[in-house]
Amino acid sequence: MNQVAIVAGGEAKAGRRAASWRELVQEAGKALFEDVNNLAPKDVDSLFVGAAQPERFAFQSYVAPLVAEHLGIIPRKVIARTELACVSGQAAIRYAWNCVASGMSDIAVAIGVEKMYQPDMAEAQTTMTCVLDREWDGINCFSAPPIFAVTAQRHMYEFGTTQEQMALVSVKNHHYSSLNPIAHLRKEVTIEDVLKSPVVAPPLHLFDCCPMTDGSAGIILVRAEEAKKYTDTPMHLIGSGQCAIGNAVNNLASLTDWVPLRRAAEEAWRTAKISKDDVDIAEVHDCFTISEIMEYEGLGFCEKGRGGKFIEDGEPYIGGKVAVNPSGGIMGCGHPLGATSIYHTFELLKQFRGDVDQGRYVKGAEIGIQHSLSGAANQHSILVCSREPR
Amino acid sequence: MNQVAIVAGGEAKAGRRAASWRELVQEAGKALFEDVNNLAPKDVDSLFVGAAQPERFAFQSYVAPLVAEHLGIIPRKVIARTELACVSGQAAIRYAWNCVASGMSDIAVAIGVEKMYQPDMAEAQTTMTCVLDREWDGINCFSAPPIFAVTAQRHMYEFGTTQEQMALVSVKNHHYSSLNPIAHLRKEVTIEDVLKSPVVAPPLHLFDCCPMTDGSAGIILVRAEEAKKYTDTPMHLIGSGQCAIGNAVNNLASLTDWVPLRRAAEEAWRTAKISKDDVDIAEVHDCFTISEIMEYEGLGFCEKGRGGKFIEDGEPYIGGKVAVNPSGGIMGCGHPLGATSIYHTFELLKQFRGDVDQGRYVKGAEIGIQHSLSGAANQHSILVCSREPR
Repeated sequence: MNQVAIVAGGEAKAGRRAASWRELVQEAGKALFEDVNNLAPKDVDSLFVGAAQPERFAFQSYVAPLVAEHLGIIPRKVIARTELACVSGQAAIRYAWNCVASGMSDIAVAIGVEKMYQPDMAEAQTTMTCVLDREWDGINCFSAPPIFAVTAQRHMYEFGTTQEQMALVSVKNHHYSSLNPIAHLRKEVTIEDVLKSPVVAPPLHLFDCCPMTDGSAGIILVRAEEAKKYTDTPMHLIGSGQCAIGNAVNNLASLTDWVPLRRAAEEAWRTAKISKDDVDIAEVHDCFTISEIMEYEGLGFCEKGRGGKFIEDGEPYIGGKVAVNPSGGIMGCGHPLGATSIYHTFELLKQFRGDVDQGRYVKGAEIGIQHSLSGAANQHSILVCSREPR
Repeated sequence: MNQVAIVAGGEAKAGRRAASWRELVQEAGKALFEDVNNLAPKDVDSLFVGAAQPERFAFQSYVAPLVAEHLGIIPRKVIARTELACVSGQAAIRYAWNCVASGMSDIAVAIGVEKMYQPDMAEAQTTMTCVLDREWDGINCFSAPPIFAVTAQRHMYEFGTTQEQMALVSVKNHHYSSLNPIAHLRKEVTIEDVLKSPVVAPPLHLFDCCPMTDGSAGIILVRAEEAKKYTDTPMHLIGSGQCAIGNAVNNLASLTDWVPLRRAAEEAWRTAKISKDDVDIAEVHDCFTISEIMEYEGLGFCEKGRGGKFIEDGEPYIGGKVAVNPSGGIMGCGHPLGATSIYHTFELLKQFRGDVDQGRYVKGAEIGIQHSLSGAANQHSILVCSREPR
């Protein structure tokens, strides 16, 4: 099995963009090939496109060859689009990784895209509901906000977590995103701002929720032994954890214990041959503030039920126990479904390079993880990346 | 890199089914686990679901964990859905293959599904049009039948191919599907039947076209060295070729020379270390009769432009130069998009086992290929399988 490295990244400005999904892909693709040495689109032999719902957001399926055409790539080894709701981008990375690892591909691009902002946002919200099991959860009005709201209610009940603690996640991530030029939301918020913002699904307020965002981001993967041809600063893929248990909400073992997250984390540490304590940067899926709190716990950064206290104590800030979402996370950067995991994987590369604002730079970081989840948090996916080969 | 084998297959009866897509998956999954020894759903660590358009056919996205839930699989290594229009199923197989090859997965299921038959078939047809580039080809009314119709017109003009020769493909494939219990269409047709059937897009008649079909099929992949634990008759994955060039119809190099097919074939023979003459069975993408004729040519079974003559001479029949679509192909078995490649990969396994009707049995076959194409034939994908390890 070949070791695999990421040698470049490129991204479109995230936000409510006056651009089609094709234009977003082209913007990210242009930046991607400007970020790499000695490599042009024609050298890429495989393409993996993460996209969650172009069929509904853009009435366009079969997007992978269309992306190839727009980027000037001729996939002659492997091509596919991957879909796994909010984890679609990481599924593309993992497909690319395995093809380079097995030798089927030499040079692969994984790129994600989603155009979510539409004139009729009610229609866009309807589209989002088909991520949940339509026959079991859809009829009960379960979409993402209600599920994470009951999760938060239950976490407050079981562990005494407070709305103020949850709000701190939003404060932290908006602070970091204010320093990130590609982020969707670049304004700081206070605890009061969060608690006074409109209620979306109690106890979640508007600023407890990530926005609907347009965006595209891509990376290039090659065999690690070839990486220095293309960049002085490659990043190495050293571990993977992914686990899905059940789907319908009534089949989840628990609302407040994300078993698939714990299992994915165990597998990630095992395959990377590291411990959770080795993680310097964690780009995690903060679709709602409660999510990030539960991720501190599920990833083992703190004890079960102590996620609220963990942020109260400043532990997930840069300089604390582990820097969580120094990019600004999904909360601040936005969440263009198919592109999200790829934005945040590229963030790790930028951090290792030192190519970020000083106010959000995790100096000396050696190990970073990118975590995404989908659906009713029934599926969690983790990539482990390192600055040096291992 | 690990060598990889397919140890089992299972399929739902293809056709216009009074079953939901979930029920089709369960039917295929039940058959799949009945086809394997010493292996239960709980032993599977990775799941790959090929599905082209559940978002529109069933208003359901994020189908992979839903399939896992219905099959009793807990993916704890890798999970994803793949989409590549008519090649979605092969994209799932290739993802699974690479994960087992790289060592990320030990036991993987690739399963495809599509529920296409709907009360309002005009709506289903509209859904199909979003496979083409909506902005460039959609507005010009290009969907699959017109594209393959102009391809046929041009092939007739350039090479003198006749409607009778094309009809022979339909006659052959309906003959074989009449002997295949899972096939959608089990009636023989004559040349006259084809030429008298309604015109869909000239020169293509109804019986020149594959039907809209519901179906699901799955396979299990493991390391080749472990295969005999699970079956006495594994099938080995020995080569892969896949190539996409352009997407919009106006960007195709030629209507009658499928360059990506020729390139995919070269790569397939190269990676499998075989020549085209070693192929005993070719399960190819006969979405229209002209497609199969052009596949004889693109795969190198005959010279360019001689595809019509090739079938006139009986070469693609069992006992001829190469047995093409002894399953009955897409024309006879039907084309449930995400499942198609998997049905026909399982067909190769059944052929190697001798587990098919004598009238369509390719005795002594050692090498089989499964070919699928998508869109405006801008992307072609080939798997090479062998009865014995190589």
